[in-house]
Amino acid sequence: MSDQEVNNGVNVHALLEAKEALTAAPEAAEFAWRATCKWVNGTHSESSVKGFSGLGGEQSHKTEFKFNADHPEVFASEDNGATPVEYILVGLASCLTAGVASVAQNRDIQLHSVQANIEGDMNILGILGADSDVRNGFNDIKAGDILETFTEEEVSVI
Amino acid sequence: MSDQEVNNGVNVHALLEAKEALTAAPEAAEFAWRATCKWVNGTHSESSVKGFSGLGGEQSHKTEFKFNADHPEVFASEDNGATPVEYILVGLASCLTAGVASVAQNRDIQLHSVQANIEGDMNILGILGADSDVRNGFNDIKAGDILETFTEEEVSVI
Repeated sequence: MSDQEVNNGVNVHALLEAKEALTAAPEAAEFAWRATCKWVNGTHSESSVKGFSGLGGEQSHKTEFKFNADHPEVFASEDNGATPVEYILVGLASCLTAGVASVAQNRDIQLHSVQANIEGDMNILGILGADSDVRNGFNDIKAGDILETFTEEEVSVI
Repeated sequence: MSDQEVNNGVNVHALLEAKEALTAAPEAAEFAWRATCKWVNGTHSESSVKGFSGLGGEQSHKTEFKFNADHPEVFASEDNGATPVEYILVGLASCLTAGVASVAQNRDIQLHSVQANIEGDMNILGILGADSDVRNGFNDIKAGDILETFTEEEVSVI
């Protein structure tokens, strides 16, 4: 562990305090997350994320986040946004990255860069309903190349 | 079924042709979707979606789509984007909406508006590691209020 103060920008102290407070008042740990999706045209939609509930009441993001989803041109669509299945991969990739940052902070490891590459394999005969033996969904999801520039001293701590 | 031409903007003809072509050449139905996520600071990351493979080769969206993810201020974070779990709900909501549009087109039903509200319940004692009996993930996901303005004649077709 280095003598320098480790700062990955994660407030681990607040998270540990929250863990203690929520263990004492478990009903406040019940969260509900929401997304509202409005159809635009064809396979194009716009989803909004703003409010959620938790800590015993209604909460809100600072701003409303909006997301366009669509199918690509190879599916005879207009490609106005990422596909729904790519949004799932974005969720997984960003969860993994935030998790690495939080755990590193808790272990006093200074991060310099982190990258998560997620790939999801899918046989689209499933979603097209062309073959009932083919799963309608991902066959496999791989997380790779979690790149991080550790010093040798830091690696020995992990 | 109405005499007027139904147009929800979904090219069902192309999708049905694709279904036939892919059934004849099933190796082209093997797709791989990707997201790359770079850590920014704290729980803040930026994910990119552009390339994917399928139809026997490398494909690309017209543009690169970028997504900021973060945790909200109630988790002592900076709220620079939706949370990873909300991205999952966006994926589900937009999948459902595109599915409604495609199936309606195939059944000659003219859509006027569609909205999907998705809510995912989560006890955060799981992700905080505060209680090993609590699942680290959603407990339940509800899809509600799939609102659509059908005429009486159209409803009878569904």
